[in-house]
Amino acid sequence: MNLNTVRYIIGTLLIVLGIAMIPSLAWSIYYNDGSINAFLYSTAASIGAGFLFRMKAVLSKDLGIREGFLIVTLGWLMASVFGALPFVFCKAVDTFIDGFFEAVSGFTTTGATIMTNIEALPRGILFCRSFTHWLGGMGIIVLFLAILPGVGAGGFHMFRAEVPGPSVSKLSSKITHTAKTLWYIYVGLSVLQTVLLLFAGLDLFDSLTHTFGTVATGGFSTKGLSIGAFNNPAVEIIILVFMTLSGINFSLYYYLLRRQWDRVYNDEELKFYLGVIVAATLLIAWNIRGFIPSKVDLLRTSAFQVVSIMTTTGYATANFDLWPALSKMILLLLMFFGGCAGSTGGAMKQIRVMILAKYCGRELVQTLHPKAVVPIKIGGKSVPDDVLRNLLAFSFIYIALFVLGSLFIASLGQDMITSISSVAATLGNIGPGFGGVGPESTFKEIPQVGKLVLSFLMLMGRLELFTVILCFTPRFWQEVRINQRSAHIVG
Amino acid sequence: MNLNTVRYIIGTLLIVLGIAMIPSLAWSIYYNDGSINAFLYSTAASIGAGFLFRMKAVLSKDLGIREGFLIVTLGWLMASVFGALPFVFCKAVDTFIDGFFEAVSGFTTTGATIMTNIEALPRGILFCRSFTHWLGGMGIIVLFLAILPGVGAGGFHMFRAEVPGPSVSKLSSKITHTAKTLWYIYVGLSVLQTVLLLFAGLDLFDSLTHTFGTVATGGFSTKGLSIGAFNNPAVEIIILVFMTLSGINFSLYYYLLRRQWDRVYNDEELKFYLGVIVAATLLIAWNIRGFIPSKVDLLRTSAFQVVSIMTTTGYATANFDLWPALSKMILLLLMFFGGCAGSTGGAMKQIRVMILAKYCGRELVQTLHPKAVVPIKIGGKSVPDDVLRNLLAFSFIYIALFVLGSLFIASLGQDMITSISSVAATLGNIGPGFGGVGPESTFKEIPQVGKLVLSFLMLMGRLELFTVILCFTPRFWQEVRINQRSAHIVG
Repeated sequence: MNLNTVRYIIGTLLIVLGIAMIPSLAWSIYYNDGSINAFLYSTAASIGAGFLFRMKAVLSKDLGIREGFLIVTLGWLMASVFGALPFVFCKAVDTFIDGFFEAVSGFTTTGATIMTNIEALPRGILFCRSFTHWLGGMGIIVLFLAILPGVGAGGFHMFRAEVPGPSVSKLSSKITHTAKTLWYIYVGLSVLQTVLLLFAGLDLFDSLTHTFGTVATGGFSTKGLSIGAFNNPAVEIIILVFMTLSGINFSLYYYLLRRQWDRVYNDEELKFYLGVIVAATLLIAWNIRGFIPSKVDLLRTSAFQVVSIMTTTGYATANFDLWPALSKMILLLLMFFGGCAGSTGGAMKQIRVMILAKYCGRELVQTLHPKAVVPIKIGGKSVPDDVLRNLLAFSFIYIALFVLGSLFIASLGQDMITSISSVAATLGNIGPGFGGVGPESTFKEIPQVGKLVLSFLMLMGRLELFTVILCFTPRFWQEVRINQRSAHIVG
Repeated sequence: MNLNTVRYIIGTLLIVLGIAMIPSLAWSIYYNDGSINAFLYSTAASIGAGFLFRMKAVLSKDLGIREGFLIVTLGWLMASVFGALPFVFCKAVDTFIDGFFEAVSGFTTTGATIMTNIEALPRGILFCRSFTHWLGGMGIIVLFLAILPGVGAGGFHMFRAEVPGPSVSKLSSKITHTAKTLWYIYVGLSVLQTVLLLFAGLDLFDSLTHTFGTVATGGFSTKGLSIGAFNNPAVEIIILVFMTLSGINFSLYYYLLRRQWDRVYNDEELKFYLGVIVAATLLIAWNIRGFIPSKVDLLRTSAFQVVSIMTTTGYATANFDLWPALSKMILLLLMFFGGCAGSTGGAMKQIRVMILAKYCGRELVQTLHPKAVVPIKIGGKSVPDDVLRNLLAFSFIYIALFVLGSLFIASLGQDMITSISSVAATLGNIGPGFGGVGPESTFKEIPQVGKLVLSFLMLMGRLELFTVILCFTPRFWQEVRINQRSAHIVG
């Protein structure tokens, strides 16, 4: 294990994080909202800790799969620990765990909050919350790879560990170039949405914060009633459209820019994703038709919650916890679908659900023809066996974590709906659930140990399970020691 | 498609079913309970229909995989249709669908009932309900293979389609011999339990009916409050032990009789099964410790519901719908585990859950060592790839049916807990669920179309999904036609 390089990169990450707090500081100075000191201390602590980490550490290109996993897991953990500081220093939260939960929820683009009176929070803190979404959406490590040259081949492991989805389409042979391209697209989408929200009547502060929450599929709002508070159909539609766009594989935008229309047009995952949105919207609209008299409002409200939940954003324009069981169960199901691979959306991802369905269909055919060899194809190409194997295991581990997590939250005394939906909503990086954690409630009432477990579920969900789980297995560390020992003997 | 043989076998099955109604007739004559005519008509209708089916049909040994699937699906459907007749004729149910639901629930050993006042039903009807459990438990087709010689190789497809679990251990090279052995063990367990229940103080009628419900992991009782009505700890313990025994692979009893102790001792699935029972019992006992003061009663009550739900029996000695969320969620989870392969228990089966867990563990190892070849072993033997593939697809289809079924029941206006648990309880052949279908409620209030869908889920669950699903795919019938045409051309 090349701990020197791990320390170097984590340290640099903390320095970057400290610098990234400066925009929030600027807003708190502009509004003079009383959180100035909190940001000064947090920035200093983060940068200081960064230099401590980097002490005597050097960057080498000798990065293996283990170093990659450790850097990503530790990087996100440390970012959340230091990201919690502004909340703690300005006393927006009662305990450090509450601050940590809020920071993890921000970076992982979950959007689950423990803040009960959001409008009373300092402006700088609100900006900071939303900005963590934006940093976490495309991936702080990906950002890092784009900025920091010379990480070399090991960077690919980190990149793969952080980019959502079962397979990574390298847009270019150089990982740095791919990372940069993704960030350009991300910034482009963000600028476009901010401008549109300004035109729709929001001020710059609300436009920026809600753009961060949308393009990152995060869900933190500056209002307690989320997007519903604006009562502005134009804002709802802009956010609806950009949530949909942010749930699409960002590679497709790259192909669009290069005018490779057919690659976009023939994308199976995109068709599946849009199909699910339309089907779920119509079903829920039918189910809640008694609640909303106007057909236009009905469709917009239904589509907004469907897209918000499925892309794992978590914004709301209605209290869907009051809807009939069918609508709630459809939303609960969509919590598992998530965005497309390579988007900023979380959960299992559309392509995994698609391939699972194809896998089951193939088995029906093979039961009748035991000796036939039937490949599973996506976009005309066979899915390789190792990708398939990983995808199946991923899905079962995802379901197992959901089940075990729900049982744990229930063991703390929460009811069944709250337990189930709080875990589905954090593991899938969505945000609100049902019952005690519904769209008009918060996670504040969950016991502290429950918040810690939910924080880890958010991290696991964001980093595609394996990365985080492996760092906590004895085997991961055992083999490191064996390798080092044998390296020593050989050396 | 050899429809001649299909007709012959289905016809014979209906004749056997008609004869199997005679014991129920005997009880209704003995108690003179007013259901004598209902049984006379039903027996006549069943035997009459049987001869109609067999008209001009001959038994040939030319049975393929398709014929096997069709015979099993159609056989169980027809048995349920004619099994509904006694309920309809004696007016124990309001509609034919209600009767069909009750008969399917009986044959599939589900034990979900629509009868609201069980104690008021004629004795013959109560016996008949429980007797359908007993016939369905080990499999009416397996019984058939044991009785009827000369079905030949095609019998294996039927056998495999009906025996629970991912792989069939042929106890002998002759399928007839295996079927007979399984039935001998089944009869042996039944006689033993009946005698013990007689000693514990039940009369012959209650001993027999509850033995049928236990060894078949069915769950129909002659009391509205199920086993709780007897208020007899000895009866509870006898039924607890025999439920546990009935959830074990029956092959192990065969090995025991042949004194192959090590094959039983080393059985991984058995250890896993017993481990899950102990763990779940302790967890629930801890969770409900406030409800039951005596520690002995607490453990017995907890173990009884755990074993009853997990073996998919469905008897109850407590209204577990009133328990805290954690206990209910553990029971809901166990609804998916089910019995061991080759037992009379339903749901996914212990071995599938075990192999899934090993599959996920292997993937974690392979993420660190992408090029390693790590086989999945059960009892020291590698699980073949095609078994693994089928098992993974089975699990996803099971989950998909659960999700789609729950959404459908919710679309009929049922609440979330009722929708989810009614589907889990029927697909897994358990019986009672939570909420509207809790242990002290019935399925009567589910709308008629919902009862039909739940009936099909029971059939699919009992026949291990693929058999039934394939019979309803266009491809199954398309290829039949193509095969027949090409056979015609070649001929």
